[in-house]
Amino acid sequence: MGEEARVLDMETSEENATRRNHLVNDLIVDLYPLSSYYFGSRDALRVKDENISDRVDRLKSNYAAHGLRTCVEAVLLVELFKHPHALLLQYRNSIFKLPGGRLRPGESGLLYCSVTSLCINSLSQISALKTKFLLNLLDIEGLKRKLASKLSINENVVVPGSEVGECIGMWWRPNFESLMYPFLPPNVKHPKECTKLFLVRLPVNQQFVVPKNFKLLAVPLCQIHENEKTYGPIISQIPKLLSRFSFNMMEL
Amino acid sequence: MGEEARVLDMETSEENATRRNHLVNDLIVDLYPLSSYYFGSRDALRVKDENISDRVDRLKSNYAAHGLRTCVEAVLLVELFKHPHALLLQYRNSIFKLPGGRLRPGESGLLYCSVTSLCINSLSQISALKTKFLLNLLDIEGLKRKLASKLSINENVVVPGSEVGECIGMWWRPNFESLMYPFLPPNVKHPKECTKLFLVRLPVNQQFVVPKNFKLLAVPLCQIHENEKTYGPIISQIPKLLSRFSFNMMEL
Repeated sequence: MGEEARVLDMETSEENATRRNHLVNDLIVDLYPLSSYYFGSRDALRVKDENISDRVDRLKSNYAAHGLRTCVEAVLLVELFKHPHALLLQYRNSIFKLPGGRLRPGESGLLYCSVTSLCINSLSQISALKTKFLLNLLDIEGLKRKLASKLSINENVVVPGSEVGECIGMWWRPNFESLMYPFLPPNVKHPKECTKLFLVRLPVNQQFVVPKNFKLLAVPLCQIHENEKTYGPIISQIPKLLSRFSFNMMEL
Repeated sequence: MGEEARVLDMETSEENATRRNHLVNDLIVDLYPLSSYYFGSRDALRVKDENISDRVDRLKSNYAAHGLRTCVEAVLLVELFKHPHALLLQYRNSIFKLPGGRLRPGESGLLYCSVTSLCINSLSQISALKTKFLLNLLDIEGLKRKLASKLSINENVVVPGSEVGECIGMWWRPNFESLMYPFLPPNVKHPKECTKLFLVRLPVNQQFVVPKNFKLLAVPLCQIHENEKTYGPIISQIPKLLSRFSFNMMEL
């Protein structure tokens, strides 16, 4: 059977076709020009100033009270000079952050259970899948709340039109003092923190209202790439996490 | 509407449910123990020995004759000590490679067209999507052929049972002498080489027959991570590219 015949053969299967369309659509991201978005500012957001030892202490006491801490962060992309740019929050002219933040205790509290329960037999697998899906939904709801608090007029106004899509990467902190890893290191049963990055597909236009102690900057992927010194260990990896996608530069 | 009501609401939509199942299933990878696979050896594979300048010359003459060169490589995972391990080919006790290789001219010749044609209006978008899907299919067929030549009894015997799945990353070489980037750098219209990594889901058991001038080694993700010196600039990034997946450690 030749190449073409085989392709046609696949096209006859309806389920394959649906799945195929999803797979293809999921890999194409429409990017709109930076100029099609509106950026305003609002009152400063209170930021917990802390050094590393404060952060470790807070992580410890939070872990004792609520267990694993989950952070959800959004990768928002726009087009400028035909190249994808990520929208990054800058604090004090130096620290770069992705919009997002820590979920409330309970908002994604079961995540760790779902990870450990994945060593399972096939009977309980279905319910584990379901749990996992529900947790992903909760993460996404949490991220919407976080985006509202960081990029909208106020915490109660969800940034409209954005579609929080797939998880593109996940980092784990095995111990309070340790770095984060893109996998759960061997023999770590009780990770302390998990950071999940989600790709958010922006609509053709949108209004961002940014607390005035932050700047929202569009930074080209080619500048972020491997620039850990400026953007930190996670943001600097975004170009790799996005490398499987094709970007559709939309002209308006 | 509460969290539960919203979830139930989504469940009533059949298309959403199908899409959701795909999304969840696509993020879970079953890993089987290393011991459930059989490893044999066969005659050595002829390897083009070359230094960097030979490689650049060959890339140049190939580009002049056939245009963009596409390489497809497979990430194969097994379980050992409850941690994911990648199967890597080792040559001369030092150089690590993913199983795969260069596609034949024409096997994925249209890829570059599809990338440039992605700056399109919505009318031609559908055909671009279709083109892209067909090209992905061709890449996958090419990778199956490459896996047969590297890991099977002979080039004509496809490694059975393996499911070549999604693309997890893509690297571009903008010029003959340059490094590869996980994006097409701005203003590069004619990249010279593209390397695509695919996740291959292994069946519960499999026979690998490896040319005797290569070793096939199971290397833990935690050892590959950020170890560019040993594993090179692309393989060392695999743990990040896989971080969005959950691994199901299957006990047999």
